[in-house]
Amino acid sequence: MDVAHIQQQLREFAVARDWPQFHTPKNLVMAMSVEMAELLEHFQWLTPEQAVALKDDPARLDAVGQEMADVMMYMLRLADVLGVDLGDAIARKMVLNAIKYPAP
Amino acid sequence: MDVAHIQQQLREFAVARDWPQFHTPKNLVMAMSVEMAELLEHFQWLTPEQAVALKDDPARLDAVGQEMADVMMYMLRLADVLGVDLGDAIARKMVLNAIKYPAP
Amino acid sequence: MDVAHIQQQLREFAVARDWPQFHTPKNLVMAMSVEMAELLEHFQWLTPEQAVALKDDPARLDAVGQEMADVMMYMLRLADVLGVDLGDAIARKMVLNAIKYPAP
Amino acid sequence: MDVAHIQQQLREFAVARDWPQFHTPKNLVMAMSVEMAELLEHFQWLTPEQAVALKDDPARLDAVGQEMADVMMYMLRLADVLGVDLGDAIARKMVLNAIKYPAP
Repeated sequence: MDVAHIQQQLREFAVARDWPQFHTPKNLVMAMSVEMAELLEHFQWLTPEQAVALKDDPARLDAVGQEMADVMMYMLRLADVLGVDLGDAIARKMVLNAIKYPAP
Repeated sequence: MDVAHIQQQLREFAVARDWPQFHTPKNLVMAMSVEMAELLEHFQWLTPEQAVALKDDPARLDAVGQEMADVMMYMLRLADVLGVDLGDAIARKMVLNAIKYPAP
Repeated sequence: MDVAHIQQQLREFAVARDWPQFHTPKNLVMAMSVEMAELLEHFQWLTPEQAVALKDDPARLDAVGQEMADVMMYMLRLADVLGVDLGDAIARKMVLNAIKYPAP
Repeated sequence: MDVAHIQQQLREFAVARDWPQFHTPKNLVMAMSVEMAELLEHFQWLTPEQAVALKDDPARLDAVGQEMADVMMYMLRLADVLGVDLGDAIARKMVLNAIKYPAP
């Protein structure tokens, strides 16, 4: 995934619509939370088995993938606005997790 | 960001701890929602100006970056479990958004 | 607010539609989270001043009140399913909060 | 549940700590979302059966009840700040739901 390229596209998309005034970090985390809940909504009434089987239903999987994309776009936009390097943040958190949850 | 590599690391991390039994799509979206709220928590009492200024406070930015990483790791794990290509999903959603929100 | 009466109405509403099979505690907290985000959505792009002013816009306030009602109905349903006395839980939590956050 | 009395207590609690400046509607919905996720967190890795059985575990049920109280207190505070009558909002939403989901 070319994060920098997607972030540039999202930035240009926002600028062309005069949206950067709304894209404060506070608003972006709220918008990301809303998209996160739309992803959650697809799973709320499913049994664990139905949730697993969802991946074999192309229409539902596409709808779920669209919600995942919505969350990701706000995540990449927030990282851009805050100047956070997501790949670096993930790498460092994985080190911390390996210490916090040692393998048995 | 090397998504496939991170996903492989997350998969091996989960397998080594016998966690895949918990990593159903339904549970992963719930866990992602919880991490999302921990990210939201950093911003809940801030004014818009304070939220913007957070990026100049290295300690708080690091804490925020860690929460962003937590959300991202569950996102990448969910994409792996469901077989969703996130880069492809984002590219397709950006086309839909360009139609939905035409530039003025 | 007559909590017991509302809970009885919600229970009968669910039974008449054969929904209790879906109303597990896990599903109800997910559904409540989704409604919570629909409430959040009304505020995501507002400035603090616009959010305060929302109470003077009857149409928007009615829409926000409907989302608050949706969250409340899942909350009351969950309390019913789990056997939690909400009034008692609030009273006890207020005592704990008074200890945790002593008045200056 | 004596909603007006609890709201008065919450108002006095906030005033005594100089918190009303933070209790804008936007911040209150964010804080409520965070508490909502702490409630969700109790259920994230549970099977549906374990989630149902939680009500027979007094310690866990008390912890869950505390999170429910946290959500409720922000809900009642928000209703107070916005001037929303929750009992009335619920009654009206139940009429709408009866139309939207007719009993079979």
